[in-house]
Parts: sequence; C-alpha cells; structure tokens
Amino acid sequence: MKIRLYNARIMTMAEGCSLLQGEIWVENDRILYVGDGTDLDAFCKRTGIPGLAADKEIDCEGNVLMPGFKDAHTHSAMVAMRSFADDMPLQEWLNTKIFPLEAKMTEQDNYDLTQLAILEYLTTGVTSVFDMYLSPKDIARACVDMGMRCVLVSGLNKFGPALEVMEERYLTLNRMHPLISYMLGVHAEYTCSRELLEQVSEMVHKYKAPLFTHISETRTETDECLERYGMTPPQFLDSLGLFDYGGGGYHCVHFTEEDMDLFAKKGLHIITNPGSNTKLASGVAPITRFLEKGINVGIGTDGASSNNCLDMFREMFLTTGLAKLKEKDASAVDAEEVLKMATVNGAKAMGLTDCDILAEGKKADIIMIDLHQPNMQPLNNIAKNIVYSGSKQNVKMTMIDGRILYYDGRFLCCDDVEALYAKANEIIARLSAD
Amino acid sequence: MKIRLYNARIMTMAEGCSLLQGEIWVENDRILYVGDGTDLDAFCKRTGIPGLAADKEIDCEGNVLMPGFKDAHTHSAMVAMRSFADDMPLQEWLNTKIFPLEAKMTEQDNYDLTQLAILEYLTTGVTSVFDMYLSPKDIARACVDMGMRCVLVSGLNKFGPALEVMEERYLTLNRMHPLISYMLGVHAEYTCSRELLEQVSEMVHKYKAPLFTHISETRTETDECLERYGMTPPQFLDSLGLFDYGGGGYHCVHFTEEDMDLFAKKGLHIITNPGSNTKLASGVAPITRFLEKGINVGIGTDGASSNNCLDMFREMFLTTGLAKLKEKDASAVDAEEVLKMATVNGAKAMGLTDCDILAEGKKADIIMIDLHQPNMQPLNNIAKNIVYSGSKQNVKMTMIDGRILYYDGRFLCCDDVEALYAKANEIIARLSAD
Repeated sequence: MKIRLYNARIMTMAEGCSLLQGEIWVENDRILYVGDGTDLDAFCKRTGIPGLAADKEIDCEGNVLMPGFKDAHTHSAMVAMRSFADDMPLQEWLNTKIFPLEAKMTEQDNYDLTQLAILEYLTTGVTSVFDMYLSPKDIARACVDMGMRCVLVSGLNKFGPALEVMEERYLTLNRMHPLISYMLGVHAEYTCSRELLEQVSEMVHKYKAPLFTHISETRTETDECLERYGMTPPQFLDSLGLFDYGGGGYHCVHFTEEDMDLFAKKGLHIITNPGSNTKLASGVAPITRFLEKGINVGIGTDGASSNNCLDMFREMFLTTGLAKLKEKDASAVDAEEVLKMATVNGAKAMGLTDCDILAEGKKADIIMIDLHQPNMQPLNNIAKNIVYSGSKQNVKMTMIDGRILYYDGRFLCCDDVEALYAKANEIIARLSAD
Repeated sequence: MKIRLYNARIMTMAEGCSLLQGEIWVENDRILYVGDGTDLDAFCKRTGIPGLAADKEIDCEGNVLMPGFKDAHTHSAMVAMRSFADDMPLQEWLNTKIFPLEAKMTEQDNYDLTQLAILEYLTTGVTSVFDMYLSPKDIARACVDMGMRCVLVSGLNKFGPALEVMEERYLTLNRMHPLISYMLGVHAEYTCSRELLEQVSEMVHKYKAPLFTHISETRTETDECLERYGMTPPQFLDSLGLFDYGGGGYHCVHFTEEDMDLFAKKGLHIITNPGSNTKLASGVAPITRFLEKGINVGIGTDGASSNNCLDMFREMFLTTGLAKLKEKDASAVDAEEVLKMATVNGAKAMGLTDCDILAEGKKADIIMIDLHQPNMQPLNNIAKNIVYSGSKQNVKMTMIDGRILYYDGRFLCCDDVEALYAKANEIIARLSAD
C-alpha cells in the first residue's frame, strides 16, 4: 500500500520549522520519500525501487504536513470524569472525587473510555500518547484496535497491583504489538512507601530501564517530601537509584535549581502539563530555566478530568504564554521551540525515535494542518500561526503508522462514535451511583 | 421568514447556565418563541399569532443553543499582522512594527481585512464585536455586507483624525444600519495630550455619552502616567470627567484597589483580554477582585496581531485559568461566571441589551454548540465542558440578526473565502514592502 501526499508544505522538523514545498510517499507504516518531487527518478535508482505507483493520491492543497503531536503525559480513560468535579485543588480532588470512582472502574470501562479519548486525540493531531492508567492491557487493546500509538507507563503505587504485576506487564506488553510499548513508572513519591520505591529501583537496575513519574506537581507535594525525607522529590527518588537508567518526570512545576541540575546531568526528560497545572492552580513550571539548562522538554495534556480537554493546541499556547507571563518577557519560549517540544522532544522522551521527524524510513505518523481557514491567514509565519493561532479545527488529517484515522472531521477508525459517547455516559452514571 | 430550531438544549443565560429542552422560533431578526414546545398553542393565543409555520426547520440533534459570544474588545483589521511580528513587548511592538504599517493601510484594506476577521469570528461563535480601528465607516460597511453586528468605538489619539471627525462619525454611524452603533473613545492616555482629553471630555458631556479606552494594560503605562500626572490612568481620566456618563476600559491589568473602587462606583465596565496580555507578557488582570467588587466584566480577544487569534474559547479558558493561577485557588472564577462574561456582560458593556439572552423579543444572535464531538463527552456538566474543554470545532452554527452566517464549517455570508485569503496576503506584502 502506497499513499502519495502531494502539493504540500512540509515541515519535517528535522531542521527547526523550515518548510519544503513538495510531497511525501508512504509505504505501509513507513515514510518512503520526502522531497520536492523533482528527484523521484534518482530516488528510485538510489533505492532500487523499479518505479513508484501510488494506491492513493491526496492533494494537500498547499496545506502543511508535519510530524504528529506527541501527547507525552495523559490518563486517557479519565475522560469519564471530564467536568465531573472541577474547581478543586489537586489533593482534595483526587481523594474525594477521583480515587473512589476509579476503584469501581472495570477493564471494559477502561477499554471503552480509552477509545473515546483516542477520538479526541485524533482531532488535535496526536499520533502517540504516553499513557499512565489502570489496566494497561485494556488501554493497549483499545489503541491497537483503533490504530493509536501508545507508550504505556506503570502508575505503580501502594494501593494498586503488586510489583510482580508491573514486571509481568513490562515483559508482555513490550512484545504485544508494534504500536505498543511499556515503561516502568510509579504514580508519585507521595503514593509510594520507601520500601516499594526501593523494590522498584531493583527492577530499574535489573532491566536497566528508564523510569517516569508524576513529580513536584504541587507545593504541598514538595513540602511534604522535604518533611518526610529531607529531600525534594527528584533528589529523593534519585537517591534511591530510580533514575540511574534515565526516564523523567511529569509536571515538574516546583523544581529547585538543584532539581533541574539533576535532571540535566542525568539526561532526564521533563513533560510539562500547563493546562492541568493551570486548571488545578498548581503553578507554572519554569520552562525557560529548563531550556537554558539543556533539559529535553515535551508536552502533555494530562487527563481530561483535570484539564478538561485533550488539546495539544491549548497546551502549546499555554506553554509559551505562561512562560512569557512568568518571565515578564514576550520573547520567552518561542513558537519554533514549542513545536519542537510537541513533536521531536516528546518522541525522544517516549523512546519513539522512529516517530520524531518526517524523513525516509521513519514511521508514517503525519498530520495535515489546514491553512485554508481564516485563523491561518495571512501566511506571515506558519509556525507562529500554528502555535499562536492554531486550533483543533486546523487538523485536517491524522495518520498513524501509515493509516489515515481521521480526515476532514470523520473518524475512519470507528464505525459508531455515537455508541462510544453513549457508553461513556453510561459508565460515569454507574461509577458515580451510590 | 420564520426559522424553527428544535430538539435543542437551550442555555438562555437568563438564569445562570441552566438548560431547557426545547425549541426556538426566529422571525426575521428577532426571537419569537423560546420554550419546551408544549405551550405553542397558548403562545399563539397570547400573542395573537393565528398559527405557526416555519419556512425552515433545523433539527438541533440535542445540541446546545445559546446566545452568541460578544468579543468585547478587538481590532478586526489587524489580522493582516497576525504572526508578522511576535515575541516583543507592547510598546516596542507598537512603535517599530505596527504603527508604520498602519500608516500605509487604505480604506479598502480595512474593509477586506475586517471581512477576513469576520470569518474567524463566525468560527468561534462571535455574534458581535466591539471594534476600535482605523476608518470605522469601512469596518461598518464590511460588517453590514457580511451580516456581523458591530459596536464601533473611536480610537482617537494625537496622531490621528481630529475630534470633529469623531463627532461626525458619532452622528452618522449611529444612524447607519441596525447592525451598527458607535461609541466615543480614545486610544489610550499615553497617546493623547491632556488638551485633547479635555476636549473629548467636553464631547462626552455634550452627548452624555459613555467612553471606552485602553487602560492600565502594562506596568510601563501606569508608571508613566503616575509620573506625568501623579495619578493612575483611571484616576487621571476620571479627573477630567471622561467617565461621567459611564463607559469603561480594555485590559485593566494593572489596576489598584482605588482604580477598582472608582470603576465599581461609576458602574464602568471592564473588558479583559487574557490572550493578548499573556502573549505580550503584560500581566494577569485581577478578575477575582473585579467580581468581588461587583464590576461588570466582559471578554475580548484584542487584535490578531497581538493575540494572535480571535478565539473566544481560548479567552474563556484563560480568563478562568489565569485567575486560578493568580489566586492559587482552583475554584476561582468558575465556568458559569465565564460564560456570563462572554455573553451577557459583554452585551451590557457594548450597549447591546437586546442581544444578551435568548428570550422572546430579543435579537436572534444565536449559536449552536456541537455536543456530538469527543471533547464534549460525557455530558457531566455542559457549561463546564464548554469553558474547560470547548473549542471552535464545537461551533456548529452562528446566527446573527436571524441570519445563519456559518453552518457546519461553511461560510454562508461569503462566496469566495479563498479570494479574501489572497487579498490579505497581498495587503501585508504591500504594507511591509520598503
């Protein structure tokens, strides 16, 4: 199966946000060719392909093709609790509203809700998610069935399944399907005992594996950790060896200079979640300082019950906007930097080095940004238009692993979206019933 | 011409965000009936209408009908400079990038660019704009030709047309067309001499008219005004009698308690512009304090060259989100309050008391919010879904003055949107040429 996407502005993200006028050929799950189309004969000669013939040709009408966005921190199935309990601080919200409902959630619920979240990801151009939630095998099934790329991460904590379960998942889910991988992780310092974290550290060392976790999301969290262990969460987890093989943290709002230095030294990744941190009043992460220290920063939506949407355009604007406000500097974290975070940097954090840029041999995780909309005109600067003026309305196509899952507002990976909406409403009614 | 919009969830905004299952009948430019549809016979009897027959029936499929958003501060034609010069502080950006280009802008440019902006307003459910820009009669023509409701406001300053021109516009544009009205205004304290402001004050008193202006947008502006006059901008303008017949201010970021008390006492309106204030790093307005003092607060996008988009969903999320961050309180400025600001409060500030809520006899400025999208599901709380998770993608219909101008992504008020895009690109190329 070969798809030719022609008459496009191509933002490969290989070199900043520069644009190439041309076409992309996709063969099965991979990008076969990216170029201006004038060197196709030479390309065939070089690669030994006898000749190119497309099974499907798509006129991109001058629109932008770029790598899909990486939603580098989310809890997909939490869409059930969207607008269910808002306007509350994090700890109260978790303890009184979220945890009691999650305790009643079934594996099938997880599957159905993840599928609803996938529809939303597709509308915002997300081609892979870094998902920490209950029953990962059901998340994986939902993703495979719909065609979403997913890096699962364990949310191990003292209330949930044992360490052995994480190990079993690590071994089986990493072999399950090309769209799926699995990373070690813990929910957070404050939901794990020291003993549990020490056992996780043994596993990190056994598999030489990176580890991800929620970290320094709120002031309370960092204060309590300091009180308990005399160290900030990053320093404490590092002291146990949890970051000896890399990994990183979600949120990272209340990082000290020493925390940042630790992350920089160890090559750990930071995933920022500005929408969730804003809505829960958790604070503003020091993105400018992260970048100055050379830390790799990706962007995630967090779950829809805290955010409340899964919209990378909102996250991108907030990433730059909140940095500008924090630094009182309108030039802080510019649009090109933000697009890199939302694509290449996220891919790096998630271990998806095949999905970062548009280039020969890379996975075909491609989105088309519609410039034929009033909010994208005039075309003074397309990268800035996308970050400062873009919206989900501008996502014309979302292709993952060479399959077009979303086009012109239609979900090609789902026969009955209304049935999914109905299921989500049934699930939350059941979970919230006394 | 009668249009029946049935099978709807109706958020009239007459009483918070409560929903009514039912239908709306529109006759010409007005709302004829709002109700559950069971009392139509009684309605006909009461009103003396012999019987209802619709020229057009629209099945709303359970979607929300609500009053259109009021973009209560904008500079429409500045779409030309979208992403033209970013990442700069306000004063530098105005002086080196914007003012030189504006000096070259023709009346026809203003007309064409305003039309492009109108397309963008329609995609985000805006049914009226409070527009301060060059050559208001051309803005008015563009609005009338497309069907947008517009309250023009003078941006008088020491570089532009004389006071007599403002007076002539006040007299003629207020009689031009039912969609158009005109208010007195000055660009800002810092672009007017004291003498000019005193002359404006005479006109305010002559016509007993409210006055609007940019005010306390940046720290520099307030500091310089204090230095010049020993008073903050609100206090200085008030001391000249400019607010003796009401009006209000745009931005209002750096307000003191005394400034707020003045606004509260005089019943002045505040229009907040969080997107623009964020992108230009101007600061965060103290919305919570405004509301505590009982000040009427509306929401505006500001122009697309500072924001860089005209998207009320982004503004609504930022209004609540930045308040939550500022107050370190996740319950600050809740979703219902924000929806009121974006509709009823904006209408009040703009003098559009006929366009505030959905009720019999009001102007038919109605939008339909599509709930059949993944970001609106499940339906735990529709008002919160709209503010915390909504996007332009959810705007299915925009009706102004009883005319459907936008439906399902199509612009029914414009035959050739591509020609408008092309014009905008030509204009900015010409304006920015040496």
